[in-house]
Amino acid sequence: MPKRGTMRAARSNIVQKLVIKAVMERNLIEDGDRVLIAASGGKDSTVMAWALSGARPAIKRTYELAALHISSDFCACCKKSPLERRLAEWGIPFTDVFVPITGRLKPGRAMNCYWCSTQRRAELLKYAVDRGFNKIALGHHLDDIIETFFMNMTAKGELSAMPIRLTYRAYPVSLIRPLGLAEERQIIACAEEQGILKTSCTCPFGLNSNRKAVRARIADFTGNSGAVKRRILHAVDAAGLLTK
Amino acid sequence: MPKRGTMRAARSNIVQKLVIKAVMERNLIEDGDRVLIAASGGKDSTVMAWALSGARPAIKRTYELAALHISSDFCACCKKSPLERRLAEWGIPFTDVFVPITGRLKPGRAMNCYWCSTQRRAELLKYAVDRGFNKIALGHHLDDIIETFFMNMTAKGELSAMPIRLTYRAYPVSLIRPLGLAEERQIIACAEEQGILKTSCTCPFGLNSNRKAVRARIADFTGNSGAVKRRILHAVDAAGLLTK
Repeated sequence: MPKRGTMRAARSNIVQKLVIKAVMERNLIEDGDRVLIAASGGKDSTVMAWALSGARPAIKRTYELAALHISSDFCACCKKSPLERRLAEWGIPFTDVFVPITGRLKPGRAMNCYWCSTQRRAELLKYAVDRGFNKIALGHHLDDIIETFFMNMTAKGELSAMPIRLTYRAYPVSLIRPLGLAEERQIIACAEEQGILKTSCTCPFGLNSNRKAVRARIADFTGNSGAVKRRILHAVDAAGLLTK
Repeated sequence: MPKRGTMRAARSNIVQKLVIKAVMERNLIEDGDRVLIAASGGKDSTVMAWALSGARPAIKRTYELAALHISSDFCACCKKSPLERRLAEWGIPFTDVFVPITGRLKPGRAMNCYWCSTQRRAELLKYAVDRGFNKIALGHHLDDIIETFFMNMTAKGELSAMPIRLTYRAYPVSLIRPLGLAEERQIIACAEEQGILKTSCTCPFGLNSNRKAVRARIADFTGNSGAVKRRILHAVDAAGLLTK
């Protein structure tokens, strides 16, 4: 039986290798890139920051990493300092920007996921463009991509997914999703091994119930098989839905 | 409460309307077409024959209908004469062709769905081309199309489906699936109303277990909602997968 230390390294290595594979195969990071990590404080984006930092020798390209956290008027409980400390260990500078997400709602409008995400996305883009970052790294993983594919198919009636690489026409910035090939359970295992704690708060509006229901139905449908999920991702990729 | 006669007509009308919609919107049948119905004796292709015959006034095109049944060396129990009688009621001539499907297997090869379906398809094509039919109508319905889409995605890793209209490059024949917009449960209701009996035998090799398992998982995933299934079909259609 391998020693505990070896086991720990082996499990984290899976995620790091999948990040390297995504970056290399899809040319997500090029020489001279300035990459802005969207750091929510959740396990996904924190594991992504750790992996992108540790993958430098394998990626063999010169790139800058920085992290941006978006605080909001409904997120007072965020424990930002432990996140900032971990990012500093990995050589990643941290910035926090406050956005009054509920404050920007028009009178009479209720809070919703669409509003929140477009406000955050707009702020991320603005910050990146203003500061000269040409890549924004988002922490969505394979399960997120498949979920979005199934949600778009069953609710919107369209075959579309979150691309692993998206080039904006209107901005000098691309979105990249370096965790796109990693399953959530692999990321959880990696976070546990690396002592990465979730420091973001849970959505206080409890608006994710539809996504959770879809997640459970996909788990039933795929029998939670990694092989089946990777074949779905391959199908979505072969149809050109992961690059825009 | 409507009279029983009215109810019966109403339920069968749903399938006929969906067949007319598919034919008109997708130009499945044109003036002068000679349409060969692949008649297995099962409920689907028999309901299709009934609907294509009864839909003549609505479709407002001149087309010929004929039915071809393929008998095989492992299907001795087929009750062809009741099928032939029903088709004659609807003005559709019936022909039976014998194909030694197991007899054609190479020594040592086991029977499988792929072999059986390619042998039948080849025979259908040959018969149609030899006799000057330019359309072959297959009885696959909305649930079959969605099943194939999910099976191709999860087993083959590709986004593809059975098209509602497929034009062969190598043959002067197109495949059409006029039941493509109808759900299986609607077809079952129609078959019951019209007194259409299943006269085909069940596959004696019991090879459909994988498709049955996928069917059950799709039913769970969609909650058996017709609206959800139609949105999936719309998504598959919008991606161009229903016309080839």
